[in-house]
Amino acid sequence: MSATDPRPPASQPAAELFEFLCRMGDNTLVLGHRLSEWCGTAPALEEDIATANTALDLIGQTQMWLGLAAETEGAGRSADDLAMTRDAWDFRNLLLVEQPNGDFGRTLMRSFLFDAWHRLMLERLTLSGDPRVAAIAAKAVKEVAYHADRSAELVVALGDGTEESHGRMQAALDRLWPYAGEMLADDAIDRAMAEAGIAPLPSALADPWEESVRTTLTRATLTVPEGAFAHRGGKDGARHSEHLGHMLTTMQWLQRAYPGARW
Amino acid sequence: MSATDPRPPASQPAAELFEFLCRMGDNTLVLGHRLSEWCGTAPALEEDIATANTALDLIGQTQMWLGLAAETEGAGRSADDLAMTRDAWDFRNLLLVEQPNGDFGRTLMRSFLFDAWHRLMLERLTLSGDPRVAAIAAKAVKEVAYHADRSAELVVALGDGTEESHGRMQAALDRLWPYAGEMLADDAIDRAMAEAGIAPLPSALADPWEESVRTTLTRATLTVPEGAFAHRGGKDGARHSEHLGHMLTTMQWLQRAYPGARW
Repeated sequence: MSATDPRPPASQPAAELFEFLCRMGDNTLVLGHRLSEWCGTAPALEEDIATANTALDLIGQTQMWLGLAAETEGAGRSADDLAMTRDAWDFRNLLLVEQPNGDFGRTLMRSFLFDAWHRLMLERLTLSGDPRVAAIAAKAVKEVAYHADRSAELVVALGDGTEESHGRMQAALDRLWPYAGEMLADDAIDRAMAEAGIAPLPSALADPWEESVRTTLTRATLTVPEGAFAHRGGKDGARHSEHLGHMLTTMQWLQRAYPGARW
Repeated sequence: MSATDPRPPASQPAAELFEFLCRMGDNTLVLGHRLSEWCGTAPALEEDIATANTALDLIGQTQMWLGLAAETEGAGRSADDLAMTRDAWDFRNLLLVEQPNGDFGRTLMRSFLFDAWHRLMLERLTLSGDPRVAAIAAKAVKEVAYHADRSAELVVALGDGTEESHGRMQAALDRLWPYAGEMLADDAIDRAMAEAGIAPLPSALADPWEESVRTTLTRATLTVPEGAFAHRGGKDGARHSEHLGHMLTTMQWLQRAYPGARW
């Protein structure tokens, strides 16, 4: 099934769609939580507020993606249930976004690599054959285009900045580059989504992503690491890094300690 | 009531005794967990194993203290319930032991300051008018005397070591010293325990603690910070540092996520 064959949502592959929606929502949830960890401690007030606002955008998008995931699953779970009571092995986010913040430069580089992919993915998803997916993407892409512009600008400012800032940004790039490949690799879920006309193949984003990212990194006077090795295991949940579980203990603490708490 | 007036346990002030036992057990639980965080990552294999063994000693003592606390409370809770399902505000450990590990020097200094107090306290508790308390203390003091000897030796070795190790140990001492005073300050619970002949007043440990600690620190060529400011709020639970809650999310994760899980 191609994007020009708009089957109604009811006949879409529900299990695969659920997985795909969890991927989208877990990416925004996990990165949103990571960014929220800077709240009150970012290196400048402007960045503190901007980072917190970005986190809020991403958590808002999570509500939509996981809301649709829960609806698709049809098991009586809510977006909050998915976010707050699944365990690490049920998360479907990219390994990139669960990596610890490190210094502000590493946080920024992580956002930059993800935002460039996120914008491209959401642009394609506005054309999804599933109108619910298209609607979420249309709402989210406006916010994410801004995230991507902002993180790219800051990567240039700090990469092409002082010796200290350049060194930190290069170290961040060297560290995070092996986590970028997972965004651009296809698997069975991705192929099912592409066949159903719901989402593009990640591999179809590889060229524009790389062009966009390399252009910015060149302006930032940073050197793209060689080698094509890519860590895998986040989006299929096969092998998250040790960091996700620790993050979830904090993020899920309230609903774990006080199940069903409301305020 | 003095230590020479051995009222039977049944007439002891149960609420205050429960608090006191939680203080003893939470100190060993929280420090034990902190030390366990080094497992597999200590700077030398010898230290890795020794630190893990110390953690195990402390967790074993926790089982005894919190077991007696639960029995004293008589509310059907077990030692595990107390350890794994109380929230931060119900913990009664000293602020010192919940401080993050930092580098190995800071971890060591934290243990050194606590161990010297712990040994003195347990020695006195072997004479407790409550035979159950005396029995736990008699068992624990053998382990803790070894902990105290070992941490003192290492403080001397690293304090009177290289420029780097000296600097780290002095920085650790400067940072942790304001957390020592809480160990030696009396409050209403302490006075109730002393009156009941169950435990010494913490202030009665101040002179021997200071003499012992200053002797070692002098040998270690370290300078004791001036000023008598002491952080408070751990042992009465009034104001734990931000670090305890984060530590508990990790420590309690399993029983929070899977209540009642057994293995």
